[in-house]
Amino acid sequence: METALLPWKPCDVGDDLDSVQTPALILDLDAFERNLDHLMASAKGLRVRPHAKSHKCPEIAHRQMARGAVGICCQKLSEAFVFAQAGIRDILLTNQVVGAAKLARLADLSQSIRLGVLVDNSEHVKALADAMMGKTQLLDVYIEIEVGGNRCGVQPNTALELAHQIVKTRTLRFAGLHCYHGPAQHFRQESQRHEAIASASDIAGQSAELLRHAGIEVPCITGAGTGTFWLERDSGVYTEIQPGSYAFMDRDYADNLAGPGDVRFEHALFIHTTVMSDSHEGFVVVDAGLKSMSVDSGMPRVHELPGLVYLRASDEHGVVDTTKGKRPSLGQTLRLIPGHCDPTVNLYDDLVVIRERKVVDIWPISARGASL
Amino acid sequence: METALLPWKPCDVGDDLDSVQTPALILDLDAFERNLDHLMASAKGLRVRPHAKSHKCPEIAHRQMARGAVGICCQKLSEAFVFAQAGIRDILLTNQVVGAAKLARLADLSQSIRLGVLVDNSEHVKALADAMMGKTQLLDVYIEIEVGGNRCGVQPNTALELAHQIVKTRTLRFAGLHCYHGPAQHFRQESQRHEAIASASDIAGQSAELLRHAGIEVPCITGAGTGTFWLERDSGVYTEIQPGSYAFMDRDYADNLAGPGDVRFEHALFIHTTVMSDSHEGFVVVDAGLKSMSVDSGMPRVHELPGLVYLRASDEHGVVDTTKGKRPSLGQTLRLIPGHCDPTVNLYDDLVVIRERKVVDIWPISARGASL
Repeated sequence: METALLPWKPCDVGDDLDSVQTPALILDLDAFERNLDHLMASAKGLRVRPHAKSHKCPEIAHRQMARGAVGICCQKLSEAFVFAQAGIRDILLTNQVVGAAKLARLADLSQSIRLGVLVDNSEHVKALADAMMGKTQLLDVYIEIEVGGNRCGVQPNTALELAHQIVKTRTLRFAGLHCYHGPAQHFRQESQRHEAIASASDIAGQSAELLRHAGIEVPCITGAGTGTFWLERDSGVYTEIQPGSYAFMDRDYADNLAGPGDVRFEHALFIHTTVMSDSHEGFVVVDAGLKSMSVDSGMPRVHELPGLVYLRASDEHGVVDTTKGKRPSLGQTLRLIPGHCDPTVNLYDDLVVIRERKVVDIWPISARGASL
Repeated sequence: METALLPWKPCDVGDDLDSVQTPALILDLDAFERNLDHLMASAKGLRVRPHAKSHKCPEIAHRQMARGAVGICCQKLSEAFVFAQAGIRDILLTNQVVGAAKLARLADLSQSIRLGVLVDNSEHVKALADAMMGKTQLLDVYIEIEVGGNRCGVQPNTALELAHQIVKTRTLRFAGLHCYHGPAQHFRQESQRHEAIASASDIAGQSAELLRHAGIEVPCITGAGTGTFWLERDSGVYTEIQPGSYAFMDRDYADNLAGPGDVRFEHALFIHTTVMSDSHEGFVVVDAGLKSMSVDSGMPRVHELPGLVYLRASDEHGVVDTTKGKRPSLGQTLRLIPGHCDPTVNLYDDLVVIRERKVVDIWPISARGASL
């Protein structure tokens, strides 16, 4: 057997979309580029630091930087290494890092790029300071504030204690406050999102005021995602936004009821799938299931084929209801809009980049699986 | 930056479990080997063809073969290539394959190993026969029967037509009937599973009888999974079983109410995760979320720490309720039993193999992501 057959790629550059083998993860380059431009315009001059956990793809990070992003966010240290190695020089790790082996690597990385990391416990600060001992370039440390996410983050009073602890070290620079409200991104009603971010902004502002009153400068207040960024933008409190999914727009984000017109994005990410069985009335079976998409936020939507509904996924099969639409034939391809882009992208090694139904590039999802 | 740092592995052979970086996918070798032995004993002499879609790991397939498995099942053609390249010589692809590029590869593969594939449409048979034109070694073709899965598969009368079509070709060998009842695997009550497999066995038997009556030999009736295999075993109809998850035993399978004592397996697969934030009362946050496990079958279970409950997952975080158990400290590791092993394994490049809290091996999950 030819070993050249592995790894098996879904297509070559120059192929027609029709000949791309399935399931494959497809990026509509025109829609994607419009999304990138649109975000920069919508930011209205605020610092933009897109979240790379959504795409895990250095080619995309470079395009975001070229459009004026100040840097990127990563969520895991191993992810940050991939982007640093690909030439991204300013990374905020929007997470706590624990464990000696990881902290040693983090300290190393902080000497070759500008690196930021979060803390929400004095033990984090102590462990970071210890790991950074003897290093020359400072590590940016952000305090995560509990602004409604109900996950990580501290109250303003604890933030003040942590800030005092950070500024006393020689190797850590207090870089600001991380104020991200995760659940608000997915509230369906814009009024709910408005209320949540008004509250988050209040808490962020109070925290900053407390620190400034104690003589501690707060260089940056960062947060926000695709579902709310215009609210943080207009808050007068936040100085940086971190949207990630806007580049792709998954089904879940599109299900949010509209904010203002200038903050809507287009679907640019699709799962290309083929009908591989049609033995039953009322549905067909496609070749993309749980190993080709994450269903944590619900089923994918069938793109541009009215009435077809992706009903249920098993590991390698998807059942598509055809009772209210034109039944696709055996071998026909469909495009699915994933329910949740981040964990879906993390299933693929390659992003098949198309323009007008031609494969114009294949971008490696280099940080796929980088979860350490 | 040292490129040697990438790819970043969670540990080295010889490490203590405590120093394995997280999240990591852990295999308890003793429990795993007992599961393998136990399945072979429970099969009571029936042919066992374990499903490799669960583990995607050639090291595991070789251990299954060494214990007497007749071959393996794969669910995707690209997966079959990985196992064939690793030396597995008998593979049943328990799926329909469509598309010219894939069919050409399938035909090639059928010349170097014994390869089987499913059909449930006369177009499949015609396309396979066309793709096999000029090949010398025959391709095994199994007809998928609808036995209650409500997904792929045909009724007995259609099976007879397809069998006639297959036996008329020169390059396809009619190899038998594929009669897998997927939903039955997960029925909680054993009585429900019993009823479902009694019905599946009836339909399988009727289909075989119809073919034999028409003079067509039925060499094999294959199916069954971890949730029901002893029912197919005792049916007097099935001649081969295909369990996969038994090697690992995920939370969902363990939630099934007990069958007979000889068909219970041990949890052998875990997600090793670390508490990375503990800023809130009532819960801690661990570093394993949606990118470290599939939650399609529900949340993972916390292993051996009574009262701790994994409540919810976001992309890279997991919230563990501590109100009813001993609160773990920042930096402490936990083991999670994944809700659904197959799509969870598909997220990792490596399986960290431990025995008595020592890393004794690291097995590549070589078919991770092989979904073409």
